[in-house]
Amino acid sequence: MQYLTQEQAIRLDEELMGKYKYSLVQLMEIAGLAVAQVVTKEYPIEKGNKKILILCGPGNNGGDGLVCGRYLSLFGYEVTIYYPKQSKNEHLQLLIKQLEIQNVPVITELSSFEYDAIVDAVFGFSFKGPVRGIFKEIFNHINSLKVPIISVDIPSGWDVEQGYLQDGIQRCDVLISLSAPKLGVKNFKGIHYLGGRFIPLELKDKLHLILPYKENELIVKIN
Amino acid sequence: MQYLTQEQAIRLDEELMGKYKYSLVQLMEIAGLAVAQVVTKEYPIEKGNKKILILCGPGNNGGDGLVCGRYLSLFGYEVTIYYPKQSKNEHLQLLIKQLEIQNVPVITELSSFEYDAIVDAVFGFSFKGPVRGIFKEIFNHINSLKVPIISVDIPSGWDVEQGYLQDGIQRCDVLISLSAPKLGVKNFKGIHYLGGRFIPLELKDKLHLILPYKENELIVKIN
Repeated sequence: MQYLTQEQAIRLDEELMGKYKYSLVQLMEIAGLAVAQVVTKEYPIEKGNKKILILCGPGNNGGDGLVCGRYLSLFGYEVTIYYPKQSKNEHLQLLIKQLEIQNVPVITELSSFEYDAIVDAVFGFSFKGPVRGIFKEIFNHINSLKVPIISVDIPSGWDVEQGYLQDGIQRCDVLISLSAPKLGVKNFKGIHYLGGRFIPLELKDKLHLILPYKENELIVKIN
Repeated sequence: MQYLTQEQAIRLDEELMGKYKYSLVQLMEIAGLAVAQVVTKEYPIEKGNKKILILCGPGNNGGDGLVCGRYLSLFGYEVTIYYPKQSKNEHLQLLIKQLEIQNVPVITELSSFEYDAIVDAVFGFSFKGPVRGIFKEIFNHINSLKVPIISVDIPSGWDVEQGYLQDGIQRCDVLISLSAPKLGVKNFKGIHYLGGRFIPLELKDKLHLILPYKENELIVKIN
């Protein structure tokens, strides 16, 4: 498996939207859908998983969470979006409206953590520590719970290259790396998926990425 | 199974982009991906299918074909897009650029029909006959071939409510209805899939749609 530095991850994202002309809307739709598919694989409704909390951060990782929430709702889950610091980005605002009209609550204050699983879509590959403000409190609280946690791209608060340092999500059960895994999760011991099946072959070869997707699947387990 | 009239199909599309605030980009991405998944299911590479021709029409059905082409290329097929009457729509233009940069040829004149399968993404639910101009010729030619045909939403040239009348794709092997099947395919005898898993539950109930998707799947066979 090839692990990306933070710089490589940022450049990859820039190339997808620059040279390869993907729109944020497209990438976010496919990334969020992949996260939702991982949730259904690991925490299926038939096994009693129903209530999913999605913690969304202020950037694009949060946007992936918003899309994931919409698909999970379509798949039959009871979804709550916890979105304390909302983005002003036009598309992210649209994603919120889509959720609200589909009766998925988007809340800015949380009183209960009684969920069957929590999707951590707070920080992604562009995160630079330390964790501050409301998210520090939230992570501390989550770290005291036993509810399963699915992290999007990297467990939030981890250094993108060095992994867990001193704050952030301590215990991540399932990780879905988007595009390719980052250096910081090289020693990750939980269940690890890959998603974001939009990497052009040329870019895959250039970065020596290993993308072991089968047939038409949007996610693949890599450990 | 519930079959939509043309008027219902048009209203459903308007509601998705109006009341439910989906963008065309989102709907097209998921529809095109679903079509690509159907192609991989029915004509897998492992069974010797490799060269796929995608016939794209001037409207949104053609856009679904463009997205399908990108995913099929990512899935390992050798894709050619035949797009004789191109749309001026900004997103459709972007989809073409995405294909070209990923080395998928987008051509406006076709000399050979030697493909393992043809995706018919010419006309969809808003089509009103008769078939005219270049497409009349293309359909006539395709009708003389034996290559498998996968139609997007409805076999092109069919009346959306009455089915095959006098011109259009006579022999469709695989059909993927988007959102819900239209009245015109009620007696369709080929392999029939449903795709476009973005219908809000409220809309599904209002239209009494039957959407038998399993878990996190984006396509489902309905016959």
